[in-house]
Amino acid sequence: LPKRRYAILAPGQFANNAKTAHGVIRYGNDDIAAVVDPALAGKTVREAVPYLNCDAPIVASVKEALRYQPDALLIGTAPKGGALPPAWRSEVLDAIAARLEVVSGLHDILGEDAEFTAAAQQSGTRIWDVREPPEVPLFRGSVYGVEQPVLLSVGNDCAVGKMTVMLELARAAKARGVRGEFVPTGQTGIMIAGWGISVDRVISDFATGAGEQLVLEAAKRGGEIILVEGQGGINHPAYAPVTLALMFGCAPDQLLLVCDVKRSRIEVYDTPVLSYRELIRTYEALCGTVKPATVVGIALNTHGLAEEAARDEIERARRETALPADDVVRNGPDYLWDAIAPQLHKTRPLAEVQG
Amino acid sequence: LPKRRYAILAPGQFANNAKTAHGVIRYGNDDIAAVVDPALAGKTVREAVPYLNCDAPIVASVKEALRYQPDALLIGTAPKGGALPPAWRSEVLDAIAARLEVVSGLHDILGEDAEFTAAAQQSGTRIWDVREPPEVPLFRGSVYGVEQPVLLSVGNDCAVGKMTVMLELARAAKARGVRGEFVPTGQTGIMIAGWGISVDRVISDFATGAGEQLVLEAAKRGGEIILVEGQGGINHPAYAPVTLALMFGCAPDQLLLVCDVKRSRIEVYDTPVLSYRELIRTYEALCGTVKPATVVGIALNTHGLAEEAARDEIERARRETALPADDVVRNGPDYLWDAIAPQLHKTRPLAEVQG
Repeated sequence: LPKRRYAILAPGQFANNAKTAHGVIRYGNDDIAAVVDPALAGKTVREAVPYLNCDAPIVASVKEALRYQPDALLIGTAPKGGALPPAWRSEVLDAIAARLEVVSGLHDILGEDAEFTAAAQQSGTRIWDVREPPEVPLFRGSVYGVEQPVLLSVGNDCAVGKMTVMLELARAAKARGVRGEFVPTGQTGIMIAGWGISVDRVISDFATGAGEQLVLEAAKRGGEIILVEGQGGINHPAYAPVTLALMFGCAPDQLLLVCDVKRSRIEVYDTPVLSYRELIRTYEALCGTVKPATVVGIALNTHGLAEEAARDEIERARRETALPADDVVRNGPDYLWDAIAPQLHKTRPLAEVQG
Repeated sequence: LPKRRYAILAPGQFANNAKTAHGVIRYGNDDIAAVVDPALAGKTVREAVPYLNCDAPIVASVKEALRYQPDALLIGTAPKGGALPPAWRSEVLDAIAARLEVVSGLHDILGEDAEFTAAAQQSGTRIWDVREPPEVPLFRGSVYGVEQPVLLSVGNDCAVGKMTVMLELARAAKARGVRGEFVPTGQTGIMIAGWGISVDRVISDFATGAGEQLVLEAAKRGGEIILVEGQGGINHPAYAPVTLALMFGCAPDQLLLVCDVKRSRIEVYDTPVLSYRELIRTYEALCGTVKPATVVGIALNTHGLAEEAARDEIERARRETALPADDVVRNGPDYLWDAIAPQLHKTRPLAEVQG
C-alpha cells in the first residue's frame, strides 16, 4: 500500500472534535500535508494541538491545501449520525477535482453518492470508504500456519484503549529493533495504518474469515510480531460476537488484557464488568477450546486518575493476577513491552496439541 | 404465507448433503412436487431417505420436474460459503423460464444476479432470497423483559440437529397443550416457519440485535415457551460468533445441548469436539457473564447407529452429565420434553442478580 500524503478535512473542529484526525496524526505513518480548518488557518498543527507533535500547516480550504501537494483527503471527524456535513461537499468535490483520493470513515458511504462517484470517475481518482469491508472467504484455518507470534488485545469493555495499546507496543518494539505489525480491525485503526478490515461490518458468518485474512496479510507484510487490535469485550451483550470472531479468526498465540479501571458496567448496559481473574479465565478458557492462548500482561487505562490512584490500580492488577501490568499511555510502553516480549511465541491449535 | 408446491434442487446431494431439503420436507407445510437429483432419479424420496416419510418422485432435471406441476423451485442445499454451484445455473434458469418462484437460502443473493433477475422479470416470477436479513437495531436489552421462558439449542458442532430438535420439542409441547413458539434463525427454519432472520447473514455488530428482535417477535406471537433454533457451536473456529450472538442476543433462560455423537472433529476443521461436560461448562460459563442459563437436557443425534449403540450413547450422556438425554428423532420428543418442561422458567440478567 502506498504511503499517503493527507490533507485532513475538519472545518471548525480540528482543535476539539477531530479524534480521527488526531489518531491518524499521532499514530499514522502517512504524511500530513495540511489540515483544513478555517478557524485555525495560519497556525501549524503543533500550535493548535501541541501533543500531536506535527508541524503541518492549517489552511482555510482544500484549494489552499493543494499547495502542499497532498494526494489524499481524509475526512477527519466522525460527526454524530455519521453524515457528511452539507457544507463540506464542495470541499470534497474540490479534492476529487484535484485527483485526491478521498478517505472516509463516515456511516454515509461516499462511494455510493452519485455526485462524488461521477466526479471521481471523471478525474480518475477513487473514494475509499474505510468502513466498507471487502468480500472475504470463510475461515479456513490457514492462519494456523502463520510463523510469527500473534498477540491480540482483549478487554473488559469496548472503547477502553485496545487499539492505542497495540500502537504503543508497536512503537516500543520498534525502539528495540523489533518490527511489530499492527493489525487494524476497526475504522480508526484502518485510517492510521492504511489497511485493515472493519470487522464489525462484516457479515457474521465471515467475521472469523476476516480475522484470518487480516493476520495472513500482516504475516505477508513481514512483521516479526503481529499485534492485533481487539474489539468489544467477551461479555459485552451486543459486541461480544465481534470479540470472539477475532479470538478464533486471528488465532492469537497470546492475549493482552486491556482494562479501563474506571468501568464497572459494560458501556450503556447494566452488565457488570468482570474482574481481572474472571476476564483471564473467560478469555483463556474460550481460546483453549480451539487454540490455547494465555494472557501475558495487562494494559490499564487509568486516564483521569491522579498519579497515586493510578499507581495503586496498577499495583492491584499486578497483585491480583501476578502478571505485568501498566498504563502504556501514562507511563510509556517500554516496561510492558519488555515484560511481555519474552512471552511471545507460537502455540499450536488444539488439534495438534492433542494429536 | 401462501403454501408452495416445491420442486427441490439438490443434484448429487439429496441423500447426504441437503439439510435444507430434508428440513422443508419433514417439517414444512408446503407440498413437495419432486426432487431434482440425477444420482437418485427414478426413486421416490422415501426410498432415498426413508425418515422423510414422503412419496414425491426424484427426477433428473428441473424440466422433468415440471411434469409434477411445482410452482416454486427450492434450492435444497446450503453449501459452505453459500455460493450457487455453477452447474446449477441452467437448472435455475429452466425453473424461472417455467415461471416457478425461486426460493433460495444461499449467501449468494440470487435476486442480485443480473441474469436471474432479468429472466425472472421476463417470465413474470420472483426470487425469494430467504437469507437476506432485514435491517435490525443494535442490541438494547429489551429482551430481558420477555415474560416467556426462552430455551436455546446449542451444540457440539454445526449441522447436528439444533433446528430439528426444537421443531420436535414444539410438536411434543403441542401434544401436551403447550404452545411452543419455534424461532427460526437460519434459512431452513425460515422456509419451514415462514418468518425469522438468518442471523449468520447479519452484519456482525447487529447479530445480537437480530437475536433480540427474534425473541421479541416470538413473544408477541404468543407462544408460552420460546424455542430458539441455535446456530454453529461455541468452539466452531468459523461460526462460533453466530452461536454467541444468539446466546447473548436471545438471552435464553435455559439451554438444550444438541450433540451428534459421531462427531469427533468440528466439521471440516481439525478442532476436537468438546466432551459433554466441557460443553456444558463452556456454554454456562459464557452465559453466566451476562445472564445465567443452565443446560437442562441433551438431545443426541445418533443417526446411523444401530439401536443398541444408540441406547449406549444415550445412557453414556445421562451418566456423564446427570441430565435427561435422548434422541428425539429416533425415539420421539416426548421423553425429553417431559423431562425438561418442568425446568423451564425465567432467569434474570447478571445485573439484577448481583444488584
